[in-house]
Amino acid sequence: MTDSSTNMRLKLPIVCFILEIILIILFGVLVEYDHDTDAKLFNGKTPNPHGHGGHATGTSHNSTPQTAHNDYENDFYYRYPSFQDVHVMIFIGFGFLMTFLQRYGFSSVGFNFLIAAFSLQWATLMQGFFHGLHNGKIAIGVESMINADFCTGSVLISFGAVLGKTSPIQLLIMAIFEVTLFAVNEFILLSLLLTRDAGGSMTIHTFGAYFGLMVTRVLYRPNLDKSKHKNSSVYHSDMFAMIGTIYLWMFWPSFNSAITEHGDPQHRTAMNTYYSLAACTMSTYAMSSLTAHDGKLDMVHIQNAALAGGVAAGTAGEMMLTPFGSMIVGFLAGIISVLGFKYLSPILEEKLKIQDTCGVHNLHGMPGILGAIVGAVTAAAVPKDVYGDGLKKVFPDVASGYRDTSSQGGMQALSLAITLGIALLGGLIVGFILKLPILGAPRDNACFEDNVYWEVPGEEHHHHQEELTTVRTEEVEKLNT
Amino acid sequence: MTDSSTNMRLKLPIVCFILEIILIILFGVLVEYDHDTDAKLFNGKTPNPHGHGGHATGTSHNSTPQTAHNDYENDFYYRYPSFQDVHVMIFIGFGFLMTFLQRYGFSSVGFNFLIAAFSLQWATLMQGFFHGLHNGKIAIGVESMINADFCTGSVLISFGAVLGKTSPIQLLIMAIFEVTLFAVNEFILLSLLLTRDAGGSMTIHTFGAYFGLMVTRVLYRPNLDKSKHKNSSVYHSDMFAMIGTIYLWMFWPSFNSAITEHGDPQHRTAMNTYYSLAACTMSTYAMSSLTAHDGKLDMVHIQNAALAGGVAAGTAGEMMLTPFGSMIVGFLAGIISVLGFKYLSPILEEKLKIQDTCGVHNLHGMPGILGAIVGAVTAAAVPKDVYGDGLKKVFPDVASGYRDTSSQGGMQALSLAITLGIALLGGLIVGFILKLPILGAPRDNACFEDNVYWEVPGEEHHHHQEELTTVRTEEVEKLNT
Amino acid sequence: MTDSSTNMRLKLPIVCFILEIILIILFGVLVEYDHDTDAKLFNGKTPNPHGHGGHATGTSHNSTPQTAHNDYENDFYYRYPSFQDVHVMIFIGFGFLMTFLQRYGFSSVGFNFLIAAFSLQWATLMQGFFHGLHNGKIAIGVESMINADFCTGSVLISFGAVLGKTSPIQLLIMAIFEVTLFAVNEFILLSLLLTRDAGGSMTIHTFGAYFGLMVTRVLYRPNLDKSKHKNSSVYHSDMFAMIGTIYLWMFWPSFNSAITEHGDPQHRTAMNTYYSLAACTMSTYAMSSLTAHDGKLDMVHIQNAALAGGVAAGTAGEMMLTPFGSMIVGFLAGIISVLGFKYLSPILEEKLKIQDTCGVHNLHGMPGILGAIVGAVTAAAVPKDVYGDGLKKVFPDVASGYRDTSSQGGMQALSLAITLGIALLGGLIVGFILKLPILGAPRDNACFEDNVYWEVPGEEHHHHQEELTTVRTEEVEKLNT
Repeated sequence: MTDSSTNMRLKLPIVCFILEIILIILFGVLVEYDHDTDAKLFNGKTPNPHGHGGHATGTSHNSTPQTAHNDYENDFYYRYPSFQDVHVMIFIGFGFLMTFLQRYGFSSVGFNFLIAAFSLQWATLMQGFFHGLHNGKIAIGVESMINADFCTGSVLISFGAVLGKTSPIQLLIMAIFEVTLFAVNEFILLSLLLTRDAGGSMTIHTFGAYFGLMVTRVLYRPNLDKSKHKNSSVYHSDMFAMIGTIYLWMFWPSFNSAITEHGDPQHRTAMNTYYSLAACTMSTYAMSSLTAHDGKLDMVHIQNAALAGGVAAGTAGEMMLTPFGSMIVGFLAGIISVLGFKYLSPILEEKLKIQDTCGVHNLHGMPGILGAIVGAVTAAAVPKDVYGDGLKKVFPDVASGYRDTSSQGGMQALSLAITLGIALLGGLIVGFILKLPILGAPRDNACFEDNVYWEVPGEEHHHHQEELTTVRTEEVEKLNT
Repeated sequence: MTDSSTNMRLKLPIVCFILEIILIILFGVLVEYDHDTDAKLFNGKTPNPHGHGGHATGTSHNSTPQTAHNDYENDFYYRYPSFQDVHVMIFIGFGFLMTFLQRYGFSSVGFNFLIAAFSLQWATLMQGFFHGLHNGKIAIGVESMINADFCTGSVLISFGAVLGKTSPIQLLIMAIFEVTLFAVNEFILLSLLLTRDAGGSMTIHTFGAYFGLMVTRVLYRPNLDKSKHKNSSVYHSDMFAMIGTIYLWMFWPSFNSAITEHGDPQHRTAMNTYYSLAACTMSTYAMSSLTAHDGKLDMVHIQNAALAGGVAAGTAGEMMLTPFGSMIVGFLAGIISVLGFKYLSPILEEKLKIQDTCGVHNLHGMPGILGAIVGAVTAAAVPKDVYGDGLKKVFPDVASGYRDTSSQGGMQALSLAITLGIALLGGLIVGFILKLPILGAPRDNACFEDNVYWEVPGEEHHHHQEELTTVRTEEVEKLNT
Repeated sequence: MTDSSTNMRLKLPIVCFILEIILIILFGVLVEYDHDTDAKLFNGKTPNPHGHGGHATGTSHNSTPQTAHNDYENDFYYRYPSFQDVHVMIFIGFGFLMTFLQRYGFSSVGFNFLIAAFSLQWATLMQGFFHGLHNGKIAIGVESMINADFCTGSVLISFGAVLGKTSPIQLLIMAIFEVTLFAVNEFILLSLLLTRDAGGSMTIHTFGAYFGLMVTRVLYRPNLDKSKHKNSSVYHSDMFAMIGTIYLWMFWPSFNSAITEHGDPQHRTAMNTYYSLAACTMSTYAMSSLTAHDGKLDMVHIQNAALAGGVAAGTAGEMMLTPFGSMIVGFLAGIISVLGFKYLSPILEEKLKIQDTCGVHNLHGMPGILGAIVGAVTAAAVPKDVYGDGLKKVFPDVASGYRDTSSQGGMQALSLAITLGIALLGGLIVGFILKLPILGAPRDNACFEDNVYWEVPGEEHHHHQEELTTVRTEEVEKLNT
């Protein structure tokens, strides 16, 4: 089932070792504890607040106390529970969501594990570099850990597009470039354009989806139907995938609110997302039944489209969107997503040669764009006085008088265009890099198959069947004689 | 396998769309951010504390700070971790607990997902309506989200009683009425009778169980044995169910403590529940082995009865029950629950025609009643001075001198009777409503079967067996010629 | 499949009931609410701070406020999220990690559940006894709950060594003794030697591993190859095991930081562990591929060795190890662990007759020793001024001038030797106790098999195969006539 190019014995260890050694060296040179993780700084008489690598804050506003503080005010207690929820989404959520394929469970959860473990380290460096070195150092703490997980999420979205068709080395190479471009795009949006994108409708979902779609386009396999029978689920694999779905669904409120400002924005973002997801689930079930000839629900829709409400609330969730507005957004996201799975994905594959294994265009692509548009409209349309004194937490640059709400909205819209541009161009280039034969892509008839890269144990019932076959054959032979 | 009535193609989309559109409109008209989620209110110079929809507090006592406060005092940080644990119990816990059936995993976790997503929205409105509108508006935040999840839990308990025998439309109709009646019962208990029931032994478990039992009684199927062979587990389905069990077990301390007063009550409730569950697990294993002719443990008991300790600590958990008392309660709950599964459930089915698929009477019904009784006794029996100044957090109406401990205990007992009455009467009426043929219930021989309502993928090994069969037949035919 | 000795009908109920009744009585006599869980104490005008049973603090330093405080300063809010993460590791993490065996899933997760429920109660008493009675009472709260879960973790590590070869009664007997010895060892290390071991590289991992290895050595089964075919995984069982792995991996930062001092130590420990695990995952994948003749990844390595980075950061994680140092430690731990699985475990089994089912020597044993050494070196080598005023939180006895950093390092190293001694001697004695025939160990050919102790449902596909066999046989008979 394997040929020489897919044998990872030397390639994978070399790539992993070199990458990790580079990471360790760079961490040794560049990384230091931030104010809340350093024993001396945190307990010093004269606090030295050289803040976090603040992702979505995108401003100099610093959420840690600038003056004397006690242990209970360490940012750990106000971010770590959110971090752990995000962490579960990255490793269990994405990992198990992709186990729906019948013979690709080891790879789904296992490669997810590998590239996430790499990406979160690399993202710490890239995001730290772009978001501001302090005395040539990157200061890290729980907020940078959340941001690193966020960036990793974007890579895993792209993984969903190429699932089953790439070697672990290709995935690591993809992660190197994607993390870097993610950090560039994030820097342009949050630090230069002063865009708001707390839950990453643009920076995470739109970016990851269109990057991955372009990669899979470049890696187009005309003869992929050779492994077509494996590109589907079985009963138990769908059950495992539901573990991923439900975890993503439950913790999406934590995801969108993980790096907002403290206080009401964090609280409000979580609640808006909660209602967006609930409404999205209702419209997903409705559309899944409506678009089936016999009205039967399709697990692909439930596993994916029910999550689109979280993606679509990623930008506007921290704004005064209201639960009412959130539910409308989620409701529309579910409809769009199911329609995408049913009607658009087949067209993308046939006409545009985009083989999108997990349908990331329907879960992250279109809902991400929807979320970006909703964010731009909400930023422009909601009057300043609705926020009162809370405006500075959500739109610090509007509160400071640097710009008005409509120009904030315009910048939000521009950010979507930039994200799409960087994602598509980046995916194009990286796709061609991944075509190098030495990277060990599986053959067309070995796609969606774990045993190319994994020791796969025999199934118990297979043994039974073999015994059965043996007995039968012997008996039949006896009869022949 | 399906007939016209179970075809959901038009019915399910129509019901889902209409319900969600009504929800969105009502949210638009009635719902607003509460003090801790609103940008203007939370950051205003003159705080305007129009409190939460306080579930179990049942008093005007307000847990958010009434005066100036900082971001770290937002209730988000003191309730949201509990909320997420409850959320996991509702979607993973209940969802996977019910996947024990061999061919009903999609429906178990999928319908659980659908009716929970609906119920939490509807519950927000119903609980907000009964627990007090402010200027005609329902103010929401993390506490109302927890309460909505609690109410949803009650609906999912009833789902357990009718599991495998109802269409998704029947379940949604049931949820509409059950959520409403839940809110009525909760209002009577907590707001009128000033009963304490933090973890919902009465409001959630007793109510949900007896409501569901009455519904399944009305929906009695004399010929259910036609699908008897599917009303059982297989090896892997029991493993999936254990995921649900363990999550419910682990997070039950968070469930019971999620909406107690802050400080010692929340801390104490979690700890009491922790020890109650540990003791319950011990007695469950003992009883499961003791009641089997060959001493072998039964997965049904482990999956369910080991949780009864959490149910039974739902009312008294916040009181000064002591770990010692909690362990006695859990110990008894485990014994009662296993005995119920072993001896009472068959009698209920044969004599009273109550087909209780998940045995909710044993997990939620009897342990809920036990919990209510323990709560009444503890409220009446523990002297006031044991609580010191903490009395006002647990029994504000005793602390204020409005009533004494024994009348508090009396009200607790009365509350159990009222809950049973509303649950049984409500279940009776709703059961008859669910008998409408248009709602698409499965035929007797199609119960406990996913493929009535779901696209079910083929199993890999089935294909193997078919191939095997084909080969064999051909060989046998060759021999014959 | 069973013989009389493995019939648990009377034995298991008697053991469970007696143990639980003893626990309840001892809790009634000895246990009381601590300052943060007691209504009167927490709300009293004159706070009476009789602190926690502080595990790793090992000092009289008390993390709860000594003077007036408000509800938000209850330790619940600063420890409970960590507790729940640890709780998930104990019940889901360990439970599902051990489900990799093809026919031992019920026992893996079910016995894990039973002995954990017992151990956490017994540990509360043992740790409370050794860590200081106050007026003859053990005061408990969230910190003692975390410590009880920690001690339970040690028992579950030992369970991993004997997995598949012991009865539930043997496991409960083992837990009784192991919890006791754990508390003795912990007392010597933390209270007498003033050693630091926040994440338990020594107290939990090294102790649990070598205790279990000695037990399994004493219980050596020369004819274990009779059930060899069951001592392996199947596809789905490996997927279930990955649930355990990923949860352990994700929450290990919470585990190591759960009982450190508040503020920067807790924050830093979590972050150090996060990077240690990420680096460990990279080296695990590299080594797994490198040591396979065809370069294919081995699920055993991924499931276990990728976690070694958490174990190895258990002692030094709270120190100023830096992310750089943490990554080096994790990197080495992954390499050591895979090499152990590949080359050392077969030698241990053949030469030393140590049948280590889960390879706990590779996941907990060697990485635990590595962690202890790293801890000793870090304690000795990092200058005091790196910690500034934070020194008193990490090394209170160095900060107070009681000892210098090098003598702290020496005590850390001595602690490792003591831990190994108590674990090996304790395991030796307990192993011989477990050999009593009445305890119901399974026969050699019934190891790794659920149906000795569990009612196991038929598998759906087995029925199919039986039907197939019947049909075939009939047809063959027809041909014969």
